[in-house]
Amino acid sequence: MNKQELLRQIQQKKSFLCIGLDVDIEKIPQHLKEKKDPIFAFNKAIIDATHHLAVAYKPNIAFYEAHGVKGWESLQKTIEYLNKNYPEVFTIADAKRGDIGNTSTMYAKAFFEDLGFDSVTVAPYMGSDSVEPFLAFKDKFTILLGLTSNKGGLDFQGLSTPNGKLYEEVLQTALTWKNAQQLMFVVGATKASYFEKIRMIVPNHFLLVPGVGAQGGSLQEVCKYGLNNEVGLLINSSRGIIYAGNDVDFDKKAQKEAKKLQLEMEAILLEKNLINS
Amino acid sequence: MNKQELLRQIQQKKSFLCIGLDVDIEKIPQHLKEKKDPIFAFNKAIIDATHHLAVAYKPNIAFYEAHGVKGWESLQKTIEYLNKNYPEVFTIADAKRGDIGNTSTMYAKAFFEDLGFDSVTVAPYMGSDSVEPFLAFKDKFTILLGLTSNKGGLDFQGLSTPNGKLYEEVLQTALTWKNAQQLMFVVGATKASYFEKIRMIVPNHFLLVPGVGAQGGSLQEVCKYGLNNEVGLLINSSRGIIYAGNDVDFDKKAQKEAKKLQLEMEAILLEKNLINS
Repeated sequence: MNKQELLRQIQQKKSFLCIGLDVDIEKIPQHLKEKKDPIFAFNKAIIDATHHLAVAYKPNIAFYEAHGVKGWESLQKTIEYLNKNYPEVFTIADAKRGDIGNTSTMYAKAFFEDLGFDSVTVAPYMGSDSVEPFLAFKDKFTILLGLTSNKGGLDFQGLSTPNGKLYEEVLQTALTWKNAQQLMFVVGATKASYFEKIRMIVPNHFLLVPGVGAQGGSLQEVCKYGLNNEVGLLINSSRGIIYAGNDVDFDKKAQKEAKKLQLEMEAILLEKNLINS
Repeated sequence: MNKQELLRQIQQKKSFLCIGLDVDIEKIPQHLKEKKDPIFAFNKAIIDATHHLAVAYKPNIAFYEAHGVKGWESLQKTIEYLNKNYPEVFTIADAKRGDIGNTSTMYAKAFFEDLGFDSVTVAPYMGSDSVEPFLAFKDKFTILLGLTSNKGGLDFQGLSTPNGKLYEEVLQTALTWKNAQQLMFVVGATKASYFEKIRMIVPNHFLLVPGVGAQGGSLQEVCKYGLNNEVGLLINSSRGIIYAGNDVDFDKKAQKEAKKLQLEMEAILLEKNLINS
């Protein structure tokens, strides 16, 4: 998928919502636990109920890897289901990978080619030649960790370096890498005040924003500084949507929460003249 | 496994060699490709031929993940084979994971409990609460990326921060985390001159050193500054050993290369009075 296709989808759905499929088998409704593949059954129901409200889905790979071979099968079925039934949707493998050159290429192939994701999240610590192998894939996006929303996020990301904080240095440097136009950046929503500065460094790239909702970030605050003239934001919500209910109507409850966020986003897009009324 | 058991194994085998099981299906001998699980067949033969010469094995998870469900099965069989037949061996899941708290716990469970590895490599970018969940597992080791041996390694790791270079800051800060005694650090061998400084920061921890051999590092140089009075080094070689041959005698060729390194290590251990003659 390219950026224009993503933008078109955002305008059609009047939404820049990403739903995090961080599926914990302990937290899914009882009646699904008897299914052959409870995690896939859960994902399928969530996707069917919300695909008109969300433009992206983001399985966190840890939740699948934790179940070994079985988990990997659930992941495979989920991405296949998305690609077959809702090909317009942008898919994100939240894997936070990164290794030396040829090894990063292996990871890139696994997520982009074998599984068929549109994008993957990558950690920057190992530098250019750990990320560029991901960027070499045409029409695929590499979502680099910039500023993360967890408590320890600033332990290193917030350190002063000769050109600003480490996360600013990461953003600046990444823009010089080959195929940098295929980058997006993870920027945590619990630090909405940082968005102004970040937009000065990366005015044109999409930002993937976790931390709205359960983690405490404010959608309005993030949009105030984070939106650009091609929208440029994907706002992720995981637990707030997928665990909104815990009974047979869990998909309806998830839909209701997704709809709330979509309406909030539609209002913001209208106000900023990013969609027509 | 605890540190004393690892040290005892090093003294018995007179070796601190780690063999990297970075198995590329394209590079394994032709006769194995007809087997039901060529990657596991390859690993089994390499392990059987070298287990008396190496104290650790390190599958790089990318090489398995690249094959999806099948690759995950090969990985599972490899670690099961190691744990069953050579329980004294230290096993490293080279996964370079790291995510927010509860998600890191998922990864830790996957590698420590479900697969049964003794250790896992972790990236530091997300800070304390992305690493401490790994450290919470008793008798398991978390091997944090410090200074990596790839070309882009210094892009960020080499940046100046208020307390030294970023990688120095990472090592210093990590020592303050809960259960820091369960840490080891990845330090690339292509920069042997850095070891002196690194040993001043982390005198007591084990360092996992990739980059000897194919990547160009010198064993003598690394040992000069890297050894401590509990050895404190695991030196990894992957391609130089596992692809030493490409025919039916590939395991014998691998054994020969491993033996060369083991003898070099034995001489160094003797010279430093770390083993008895």
